[in-house]
Amino acid sequence: PRPNCTPATAGRPPVDLCGSFLPATSWQSGVCCRKLHSGADGSKPSPAAAPDRRPFSRITREDLDSFRKIVPGRVITDPDLLESSNVDWLKSVRGSSEVLLRPQTTEEVSKILKYCNGRNLALNPQGGNTGLVGGSVPVYDEIVLSTALMNNILTFDGISGILTCQAGCVLENVSIYLEERDYIMPLDLGAKGSCHIGGNVATNAGGLRLLRYGSLHGTVLGLEVVLADGRVLDCLATLRKDNTGYDLKQLFIGSEGTLGVITAVSILCPRKPKSVNVVFLGCETFEQLLKTFQLCRGMLGEIMSAYEFLDSECMRLLNTHLKLPNPISDCSFYVVIETSGSDPTHDGEKLHNFLEEAMNSSLVTDGTVATEDSKIKALWSMRERVTEALTHDGFTYKYDISLPVERIYQLVTDMREHLGGRAKSVVGYGHVGDGNLHLNITSPAKDPALLAAIEPFVYEWTASCHGSISAEHGLGLKKRNYIYYSKPRQVVALMGDIKAMLDPKGILNPYKTLPDDLK
Amino acid sequence: PRPNCTPATAGRPPVDLCGSFLPATSWQSGVCCRKLHSGADGSKPSPAAAPDRRPFSRITREDLDSFRKIVPGRVITDPDLLESSNVDWLKSVRGSSEVLLRPQTTEEVSKILKYCNGRNLALNPQGGNTGLVGGSVPVYDEIVLSTALMNNILTFDGISGILTCQAGCVLENVSIYLEERDYIMPLDLGAKGSCHIGGNVATNAGGLRLLRYGSLHGTVLGLEVVLADGRVLDCLATLRKDNTGYDLKQLFIGSEGTLGVITAVSILCPRKPKSVNVVFLGCETFEQLLKTFQLCRGMLGEIMSAYEFLDSECMRLLNTHLKLPNPISDCSFYVVIETSGSDPTHDGEKLHNFLEEAMNSSLVTDGTVATEDSKIKALWSMRERVTEALTHDGFTYKYDISLPVERIYQLVTDMREHLGGRAKSVVGYGHVGDGNLHLNITSPAKDPALLAAIEPFVYEWTASCHGSISAEHGLGLKKRNYIYYSKPRQVVALMGDIKAMLDPKGILNPYKTLPDDLK
Repeated sequence: PRPNCTPATAGRPPVDLCGSFLPATSWQSGVCCRKLHSGADGSKPSPAAAPDRRPFSRITREDLDSFRKIVPGRVITDPDLLESSNVDWLKSVRGSSEVLLRPQTTEEVSKILKYCNGRNLALNPQGGNTGLVGGSVPVYDEIVLSTALMNNILTFDGISGILTCQAGCVLENVSIYLEERDYIMPLDLGAKGSCHIGGNVATNAGGLRLLRYGSLHGTVLGLEVVLADGRVLDCLATLRKDNTGYDLKQLFIGSEGTLGVITAVSILCPRKPKSVNVVFLGCETFEQLLKTFQLCRGMLGEIMSAYEFLDSECMRLLNTHLKLPNPISDCSFYVVIETSGSDPTHDGEKLHNFLEEAMNSSLVTDGTVATEDSKIKALWSMRERVTEALTHDGFTYKYDISLPVERIYQLVTDMREHLGGRAKSVVGYGHVGDGNLHLNITSPAKDPALLAAIEPFVYEWTASCHGSISAEHGLGLKKRNYIYYSKPRQVVALMGDIKAMLDPKGILNPYKTLPDDLK
Repeated sequence: PRPNCTPATAGRPPVDLCGSFLPATSWQSGVCCRKLHSGADGSKPSPAAAPDRRPFSRITREDLDSFRKIVPGRVITDPDLLESSNVDWLKSVRGSSEVLLRPQTTEEVSKILKYCNGRNLALNPQGGNTGLVGGSVPVYDEIVLSTALMNNILTFDGISGILTCQAGCVLENVSIYLEERDYIMPLDLGAKGSCHIGGNVATNAGGLRLLRYGSLHGTVLGLEVVLADGRVLDCLATLRKDNTGYDLKQLFIGSEGTLGVITAVSILCPRKPKSVNVVFLGCETFEQLLKTFQLCRGMLGEIMSAYEFLDSECMRLLNTHLKLPNPISDCSFYVVIETSGSDPTHDGEKLHNFLEEAMNSSLVTDGTVATEDSKIKALWSMRERVTEALTHDGFTYKYDISLPVERIYQLVTDMREHLGGRAKSVVGYGHVGDGNLHLNITSPAKDPALLAAIEPFVYEWTASCHGSISAEHGLGLKKRNYIYYSKPRQVVALMGDIKAMLDPKGILNPYKTLPDDLK
């Protein structure tokens, strides 16, 4: 039996499980929300579908007047200007917020939250809106609180490499600022031109430098956070070591704006490397690829900064759809290794010795090295443009899975066998060094039967290996109800307790991160 | 007016503010606790003094019978066997526990905590009992729960370098296990022969490798924790990336056993370096020492693993009391730099180039290099044996302060000026790379007037620079009431909320970490 269909007030679109683009027309025409949120067979809502709107207050004229006093000239209600804040960049989720607030200071954020908490108004903190799991846009009419105007660098200590900045600084701008001072950010992302450092911290962004510089839990030294009731939590230390009480800032790293609004960040930045090299290698088996990884860790040691892989299916798609030629001979697996060091000669020698050993021991079948920028970019594109090649292959079901490193490719092999001829392509690529697999499955068109064959198979497989069903993207709206595949009930229950303690009315980024069965 | 003197039931000693050795006889003779806890002028209790015993239940025969069912043969009540669990290793704090429990499994820990919580019995989790702030021993009659028999390594993944082990594994044993497999632990401490990895995590131990490998907040990937009511929180992931909900394990890192008992740890281990070098340098000013640090970061880059310093006063004490000759000519400041890398030739060349530049630019006055183990040890001893030299200089007041790196020596200079001729020696040494100063002040004998001149001056000075009054030792019993020098009230209040949520009866390591004014 199908559930009742209630027309959506603002033409809110479905959550699209695979996160791919939905043409604007399909959700601007007042489509039936419930129906579109239903499962593959139409019989029950998908775990990714939005739950019912909670009984938050609705915004009144008086509320708008109050906001205009707090952030004069920065209360946006024009629907056209709100459009980009209501839709995620995958265009897979859409909210119907009628107010966008653009504070410039922590004090303004505090006043806004205090007001909203008193009035029981829900609020969606938003950085660069580059998230992939529907965490950065409103689900219903939540007020959007943008950090875009909080974009000042506050301090930088050229001796320690510790930077403090407001949450709305765009990652790329901060990176440029640092590079001029011979430092770099410890994280780098494809979305760096738009994403905010506050959003990076709120989502515990991983990215391309995690292998070398570690996660934000280690590199973020301090946070300033405004709690749901407007209290300002000043944990903005700029110290590498501080053991005075509980490290509360850690709670907010990766909490996706559900526990507080991050307003400022201090972060430890590494020195800019003087030398960067990239190698592209081919291996015949995944076992050889893993052995090469071990050899690489031993021989490149401290200069290894990336160890990425793609399989021959990815290469086929790159050849077919993007006309990118294979830079080496055909192999089953390809590896992109990057080194970053302080001495070009030494780095070159280390690479040479490593390659000689890898070739001599037959771990590697073929390979090529790049030291010039243009060739480095060309080799990196073999890894970075797989996503683009996939979009040309058909409708794509995307999974971002963390597994014990020796298991990551087994999931691709098992999925291929499990699906038989039902999928067009089943490809695997990702960050070997981080144990992070990107599993992608394509089909000529959207295929509910195929989806039913993939899920929950992929989640159950991951759970059976104690993996994570979201390595770096977070849970947001789309994946919140899948949390139990990676976290035990006791742990999730405690997350709920912490949410209830810090945000008793649940006004901060509702419907996100935590599963619906938590009160 | 002096407070009333109530004889201590078990001759509990005072908290000695400077953490130095108190002869056993002084606290085994039933001394007056309150009096000894009073301040320098005897008029009011020191902020380090223990508060009154809270109304926990007292242990009964029935309780002991219940414990014997949970951990048969591992309930220790013999006072002689309890002795070492009741006294910290500085012999500065003493409890009067009558029961020591030695569980072997998480399930046993869970049963013990569930029982204690039901009976309102307080409990002191204990690892290697090597803490410096009175956090690892009971204050009154808390039951001691030792992790000593929980010492199994659970898994080690030779590809990813991820180790999981029980909390009671001794750090040195784990290190040996890893070195045999070509890995090392990301932390190293002087106390490694006794300290437990669970205790290291519970206290967020810093140590000698933090500059290179970062803090435990980054390297610890998973924890298993038993909560006060016996609930087992399974956050024992072995993944580098996992963004499924809040990262709850972080709460327990550095919580000093007040929020839960850590029973197992998973940790990311670096590869064992193939090459280690040590240099000992002299600089004329602290500004030159900082410039040398910057040069070092640029030229040694990824192979720098330590940058430690001592001042000429430390050198004088090493010469005078330990007869250690200065390996170079006399300077105002001395630096110990360690490199760890994967290629001995490259590391040697980097060092050579760095030294040439440092000498040519007159940043460094003199220096010597060691590549052999024995000479490496000799040079390291100039830094490591300062503590020992201090004990020969007189009664020592010790402070472990974290500051913005460019400020660390100013505190020593200011303290020297502030104290004038009142102190025998005022010396500074520590971890420049981490912004961590060890400030030590000696006096021919214990000197309350000198202490009154040092405190709160040292804490106020630190607070004025937004420093930390405990860089790596934690707060424990001794420093709990000084927390406000480094953390705002709002933040401390939230710590109290978290404690109340996780341990509503307050049975876990009472009187520690949080200040007395929190309920």
